[in-house]
Amino acid sequence: MAFNSFGNIFKLTSFGESHGTSIGGIIEGCPAGLEIDFIFVQEELNKRKPGQSRIVTQRKEEDEVEFLSGIFEGKTTGLPIGFIIKNTNAKSKDYAHLKDAYRPSHADFTYQEKYGHRDYRGGGRSSARETACRVVAGAIAKLFLRHYKVKINAFVKQIATIKLEKNFSELNLEDTFLNIVRCPDMVIAEQMINLIESIKKQGDTVGGIIQCVIQNCPVGLGEPVFDKLNAVLAHAMLSINAVKGFEIGAGFEAVTKKGSELNDEFIKNSNGNTSTKTNNSGGIQGGISNGMPIYFNVAFKPVATIMQTQNTLNKLGEEITLEAKGRHDPCVLPRAVTIVEAMAAMVIADFLLISKVNKL
Amino acid sequence: MAFNSFGNIFKLTSFGESHGTSIGGIIEGCPAGLEIDFIFVQEELNKRKPGQSRIVTQRKEEDEVEFLSGIFEGKTTGLPIGFIIKNTNAKSKDYAHLKDAYRPSHADFTYQEKYGHRDYRGGGRSSARETACRVVAGAIAKLFLRHYKVKINAFVKQIATIKLEKNFSELNLEDTFLNIVRCPDMVIAEQMINLIESIKKQGDTVGGIIQCVIQNCPVGLGEPVFDKLNAVLAHAMLSINAVKGFEIGAGFEAVTKKGSELNDEFIKNSNGNTSTKTNNSGGIQGGISNGMPIYFNVAFKPVATIMQTQNTLNKLGEEITLEAKGRHDPCVLPRAVTIVEAMAAMVIADFLLISKVNKL
Amino acid sequence: MAFNSFGNIFKLTSFGESHGTSIGGIIEGCPAGLEIDFIFVQEELNKRKPGQSRIVTQRKEEDEVEFLSGIFEGKTTGLPIGFIIKNTNAKSKDYAHLKDAYRPSHADFTYQEKYGHRDYRGGGRSSARETACRVVAGAIAKLFLRHYKVKINAFVKQIATIKLEKNFSELNLEDTFLNIVRCPDMVIAEQMINLIESIKKQGDTVGGIIQCVIQNCPVGLGEPVFDKLNAVLAHAMLSINAVKGFEIGAGFEAVTKKGSELNDEFIKNSNGNTSTKTNNSGGIQGGISNGMPIYFNVAFKPVATIMQTQNTLNKLGEEITLEAKGRHDPCVLPRAVTIVEAMAAMVIADFLLISKVNKL
Amino acid sequence: MAFNSFGNIFKLTSFGESHGTSIGGIIEGCPAGLEIDFIFVQEELNKRKPGQSRIVTQRKEEDEVEFLSGIFEGKTTGLPIGFIIKNTNAKSKDYAHLKDAYRPSHADFTYQEKYGHRDYRGGGRSSARETACRVVAGAIAKLFLRHYKVKINAFVKQIATIKLEKNFSELNLEDTFLNIVRCPDMVIAEQMINLIESIKKQGDTVGGIIQCVIQNCPVGLGEPVFDKLNAVLAHAMLSINAVKGFEIGAGFEAVTKKGSELNDEFIKNSNGNTSTKTNNSGGIQGGISNGMPIYFNVAFKPVATIMQTQNTLNKLGEEITLEAKGRHDPCVLPRAVTIVEAMAAMVIADFLLISKVNKL
Repeated sequence: MAFNSFGNIFKLTSFGESHGTSIGGIIEGCPAGLEIDFIFVQEELNKRKPGQSRIVTQRKEEDEVEFLSGIFEGKTTGLPIGFIIKNTNAKSKDYAHLKDAYRPSHADFTYQEKYGHRDYRGGGRSSARETACRVVAGAIAKLFLRHYKVKINAFVKQIATIKLEKNFSELNLEDTFLNIVRCPDMVIAEQMINLIESIKKQGDTVGGIIQCVIQNCPVGLGEPVFDKLNAVLAHAMLSINAVKGFEIGAGFEAVTKKGSELNDEFIKNSNGNTSTKTNNSGGIQGGISNGMPIYFNVAFKPVATIMQTQNTLNKLGEEITLEAKGRHDPCVLPRAVTIVEAMAAMVIADFLLISKVNKL
Repeated sequence: MAFNSFGNIFKLTSFGESHGTSIGGIIEGCPAGLEIDFIFVQEELNKRKPGQSRIVTQRKEEDEVEFLSGIFEGKTTGLPIGFIIKNTNAKSKDYAHLKDAYRPSHADFTYQEKYGHRDYRGGGRSSARETACRVVAGAIAKLFLRHYKVKINAFVKQIATIKLEKNFSELNLEDTFLNIVRCPDMVIAEQMINLIESIKKQGDTVGGIIQCVIQNCPVGLGEPVFDKLNAVLAHAMLSINAVKGFEIGAGFEAVTKKGSELNDEFIKNSNGNTSTKTNNSGGIQGGISNGMPIYFNVAFKPVATIMQTQNTLNKLGEEITLEAKGRHDPCVLPRAVTIVEAMAAMVIADFLLISKVNKL
Repeated sequence: MAFNSFGNIFKLTSFGESHGTSIGGIIEGCPAGLEIDFIFVQEELNKRKPGQSRIVTQRKEEDEVEFLSGIFEGKTTGLPIGFIIKNTNAKSKDYAHLKDAYRPSHADFTYQEKYGHRDYRGGGRSSARETACRVVAGAIAKLFLRHYKVKINAFVKQIATIKLEKNFSELNLEDTFLNIVRCPDMVIAEQMINLIESIKKQGDTVGGIIQCVIQNCPVGLGEPVFDKLNAVLAHAMLSINAVKGFEIGAGFEAVTKKGSELNDEFIKNSNGNTSTKTNNSGGIQGGISNGMPIYFNVAFKPVATIMQTQNTLNKLGEEITLEAKGRHDPCVLPRAVTIVEAMAAMVIADFLLISKVNKL
Repeated sequence: MAFNSFGNIFKLTSFGESHGTSIGGIIEGCPAGLEIDFIFVQEELNKRKPGQSRIVTQRKEEDEVEFLSGIFEGKTTGLPIGFIIKNTNAKSKDYAHLKDAYRPSHADFTYQEKYGHRDYRGGGRSSARETACRVVAGAIAKLFLRHYKVKINAFVKQIATIKLEKNFSELNLEDTFLNIVRCPDMVIAEQMINLIESIKKQGDTVGGIIQCVIQNCPVGLGEPVFDKLNAVLAHAMLSINAVKGFEIGAGFEAVTKKGSELNDEFIKNSNGNTSTKTNNSGGIQGGISNGMPIYFNVAFKPVATIMQTQNTLNKLGEEITLEAKGRHDPCVLPRAVTIVEAMAAMVIADFLLISKVNKL
């Protein structure tokens, strides 16, 4: 059992609560000899950190990672990489009024029932603060994947009803981080930002869809039955806070198509390699990568914490009224783009390592 | 690593190819003392078996399970339950023409590249025949879950564009297996059957959506971070052949709602228990079951094998024309309902066992 | 959790009771493309099977393995290898008198208490019959290790007080299976055989020591902390029925030596490779193989089933007298040599695969 | 794969090198609601720490543990317990001369070959410093086991040829920590201390045997086949630095006994419980605890670092002479007693949790 771990060979085990002294983790299975670009790792964290723009939570947290082991003279040693990120801006008193409250659509009730005892400060372990550890591990995975030229790009495809209708091949995915909402189309991005700002003024929240594209993925990643590459990607994505849906390739639209319309014919591509004419499979067939781009959508619900009064119960079963306080995100997607990429990078790195032992 | 296994405590490890002598598996972690209703297990297999109706493949396979260990005097011993299902109707010569062909949207190419060597007969291990083993393990899981009164009901919600619009609470889920398409609304079912028959005549295939509802699930199942109950359900479902999407609770529709609309207020239910007014969370909050019904949708693409001529490549990279042969399903959903239930049952049984050690 | 499994990548999961219809298992992680020498696998089983000589149990069991999957056209496919061995000579009525008895030094009491329900026939799952599955997996592991020229030789070093005092380097380990007791020194072997025959006449049993030597093991196998190569070998050996002790390299004798006497100085060997002058480390330093021969001793207690009357209790806590019946081994070591080799082969094969991903 | 982890449910994952900024770990699976006695945890660490007496290394390291998560208001929350121990006295320049040297019987060569790159300072990850993390996890396990009244006592039974011949039942195991060598017989302890001091003056080192006794262990712990309780204890012990042997119950002496002498007859004990007359099995039958005391011996070789000049090779394959420097233990056993107990406690805690799901 590995409930605080993700991955088989390339593996992150994480710990930490939102308002503890620090969060952190252990990254195992990263091969020895990988040069660590510390600036890159920190930049990845910066893309997720709170307080970075006007459309995310104004909580200020520097999210500086300290590596404690497993890296020597700038390179991985093949041994576990321990790291911590200190919680510098935890204002636990902001949460005293929530001690016994069950906030709607939060984990307060389920944690209380499961464990009989919980750290209620800032959501404790159920806070998305934990995802900072994923970003660290994802950054290391990305550095490893550079050796295989694998490219992973996530971006915001939809905020509420504002949708980027273009196919990813029509977009310049390198532009994603040029705006604060992380949508590679600047016109749509502007609309999304305006929407989020307007929702924020209402004290409300919105959700949306992040699309992730993995290019240059080697053929042969994924395991045939239970650990199909798509199944593990789904697992990875649904493990992110607020995610309610996942679809790969043609996804839910495949439902209304016929087999004759959806099948991906094999053809030679311009390099003479076996390729497919269309890519409704989303780069994965029989659970195994086929070398075509892998793309999938991840649906996020609106943030549960709203700046409006809500009715709910407390631990004693009494009806209470909840007044919103604190500093929260009106929309989680701008900060989640990096988390989606991080989880995807960990999955691909892990299966890439596994694929080294498939054949004699 | 456990690539042919699913589950942590309650675990299935499976083996077998479509045209080998038999498929089978080992079920571990089922507590000792569980009475096995062998007739029930076989009935579950019968719901999945080929040849059972005019809208599924006409291949005849009896799918009789033989238990080899772990059951003594009708009860589980707590030790591994080995079982096999013989392949009685494997007509491998039907597949000789596919030896080197890469069928569109099948796993031929990816298996060949991954392993350099493959059993091409009937799709080998990539065939959905392997899911019969899941049904056996799922049936044992269901027998275990009866002790906790957990009810798991899947049904066909959509075939191509024909959609059952009702909420599951308006349906009599016990009626699902009264018709051959496995839709609990008899009127919609009729339309679905007609559609499948018409598609079959075209030599084409269709997909659809299966919804699964889990009722009376105890509060507290699921692990907080990487093994959230929803994440493991997504993993389970995406590991089923032909699945392209998963959504839980409000799912993809949550994207266009505001937080204030979507949040599930806590209320006392008629039994005085903590409950929620709405259930957009789909019975899971913070990755942990909250006692409300768990419901999720699983999107299946149309079957890749069509009775039409297709262009593709062979192993040598040559362009070939594929003439369809053999006995195939025009639509996989009627047979997949039981598979979805089986996977859900395994997930819930596993987390139920895990929950025994959460508290001192 | 993997309680019926052994290994990480190269992994055996086994099932089956002594008197069920068959025992069997699933071998995972064997790379695709390995040619299976079926005759070799069966010969390995023959070395373990009962009834093969006058100093082992006279129970006749052919122990024929049937492979059900994972091998196609004589080669592994990289997919799980399912197999069964039928129980052809189970005479369960021999055990009816043991239904409620707790045989001294057997697992009857502990199984009953742990599970509340047990298959008492022939010891059920606690019977060493289960080790036949290990021999199958070990044989596949040995075939894999041939590609790396790794040689694994176990032999009987001691039976009761009769001890082969020579160092393994003075022995011709290929001669081990020339006699029925499996000791490569023919003079000592004769003494051992005589002793076992004499003990058998007394209706008693004896134990002994098996030494195992692994030559040509690549440098770098084993993991630094918890899964040191020596730790996993110890785990493997202590998992064999009747084993009470394990020592590696200088072993228990290291206790009375000084550091200055025991340290293994590094030197160049005749091939110019880094080697050690002595090998008190037993081929493993810091948990990782150093290229020198790995050697270890495994202590087996005498078989618990004796042909003498014994006092004990039954399930109801009543004092009873146990009359011995059935066909049992006076000494388990001759048949255990192959089991020790099989477990060692699985460990080395597993770590060899793991070592493929240590470095960038 | 879990190479830096130990345990299934109750699990430690550790990280850190001897001369990094800190070592640490994550403890998972400890049930929620356990009160943490922080003073007890620190006392356990103090029993292992360097510099505590004249017969251990004079290196001063305070070994203060800082818990970072998983404990709230003094009790475990059921969530991962992250912790670090800072390295306050790392004098890395002491090791500069060892940068390229392969110290005899150390892990320098094997790490270099396995990873191609290593942190040579103070042995890096191969240093026994890592065992401090095990002591932290073991202390938490002991606190958990108090609820089941399980008692775990290890003690030094032998140093070189000085041996405590008494059976553990004749000793007062609570006296073990009254002397600096950790032998519960004060006369033998004095002899051991004198021997160690004399060896230290010679610049040499000695080994010995630690015995560990587990009392009040519930019946039914351990898994039948591969994860027998004795097998996992062997794994645990052989994973400790410098351990070369393990024996349980009658151990290697069982080899020279007959079955009729060694079998443990079942009898009623004074409480009317099923018990055994003798305990050659060492409290475990068929891999499962039977309620009798579990006892086993662990053989430690002398410390490899000696204060004498040694010949060896360096990374370039050149012959070099090694002058000893630094502060080292002449004998590791006094500090290892707590480590043996910690590993035993983790094993028992883990199997105790697992046993909660054995029966319906």
